[in-house]
Amino acid sequence: MAEGSSTPEPIQRLVESFHRLPGIGPKSAQRLAYHILRTTEQEASALAQAILDVKQRIRLCSQCMNITESDPCGYCRDERRDRSVVCVVEQPLDVLAIERSGGYRGLYHVLHGVLSPMDGIGPEHIHIRELVVRLQAGEIQEVIMATNPSLEGEATAMYVQRLIGPAGVKVTRLARGLPSGADLEYTDDVTLARALEGRQEV
Amino acid sequence: MAEGSSTPEPIQRLVESFHRLPGIGPKSAQRLAYHILRTTEQEASALAQAILDVKQRIRLCSQCMNITESDPCGYCRDERRDRSVVCVVEQPLDVLAIERSGGYRGLYHVLHGVLSPMDGIGPEHIHIRELVVRLQAGEIQEVIMATNPSLEGEATAMYVQRLIGPAGVKVTRLARGLPSGADLEYTDDVTLARALEGRQEV
Repeated sequence: MAEGSSTPEPIQRLVESFHRLPGIGPKSAQRLAYHILRTTEQEASALAQAILDVKQRIRLCSQCMNITESDPCGYCRDERRDRSVVCVVEQPLDVLAIERSGGYRGLYHVLHGVLSPMDGIGPEHIHIRELVVRLQAGEIQEVIMATNPSLEGEATAMYVQRLIGPAGVKVTRLARGLPSGADLEYTDDVTLARALEGRQEV
Repeated sequence: MAEGSSTPEPIQRLVESFHRLPGIGPKSAQRLAYHILRTTEQEASALAQAILDVKQRIRLCSQCMNITESDPCGYCRDERRDRSVVCVVEQPLDVLAIERSGGYRGLYHVLHGVLSPMDGIGPEHIHIRELVVRLQAGEIQEVIMATNPSLEGEATAMYVQRLIGPAGVKVTRLARGLPSGADLEYTDDVTLARALEGRQEV
């Protein structure tokens, strides 16, 4: 195609930038770029500014490693929360999920990843050391490992359990079983096996 | 939820900004915002800058109304293109689609919309007047109406035909029929009727 006949460079660059985001294919990236072109100057700069603000104003809480604007974060500062329990999650989004469930009033600890030897991610790459330091203060009595029920999530939970269990801290894991609204007929074998294994008296 | 315990304000604002983009639901917006949080400073500012650049550096070609960095645009400047034919499309993306087809070497005219009385969009809201002005120069002999085969697209083509037809300019419409690779059994009635109507000798 002749130089001048192709898409203008700034649009091409925006399409590529959008395409680099997770879950945005080439077609969606193009649609988004042309949307930016049509939208108001104000709307576009609001988006650009929001992107920059997130990078500039968000940091990690020095206690729980969750993302926050002020250190310590709102959860760690909140006097009404139970300071004897810490729920360990992989990502900041997991904190939101647990908060939404409404079933938890303790503190958090965000690992920002899971152990994954295949990807070269060892204990020194995620915030496990900071968890151990928190436990040394002696206030925490239970650590709930709420990493995902995946291979890596389980391995990480196991690793943490072996690391801190001997210090006398109770380490628990989120229950495994049938999700609410599930249909036995369509439940996968592993889930069903775990549901049977963890069966409880009614 | 307690003030400090919720999502930090900059993230919330970024989630909302992403959510305002077409085809980005609340979950995707959240995932994108947290991706920005994890990505490098450089990657994030590249995206922000690309958004701003598109708004600042892209304008409309004064001749064909297509988006461009330099006026007139590459298509209008290109001496090898056939200046006696103009293909009228709804959006800049349609120009790219027609270029990709490889079947066209004339000029373009981008309306930036279609007539839609229901949405209050009349001839004065899209670039029809600029098309009429171009035709007055006398060089253009055929206008191909390549608006979408939708109700609004058809109405717009009809309107333009009535407006410029009397001036002696040939107005054509893209052929309607079966798309390549279609299956008769699953083709909708309107398409099939149009394909029959427009049947050609082999």
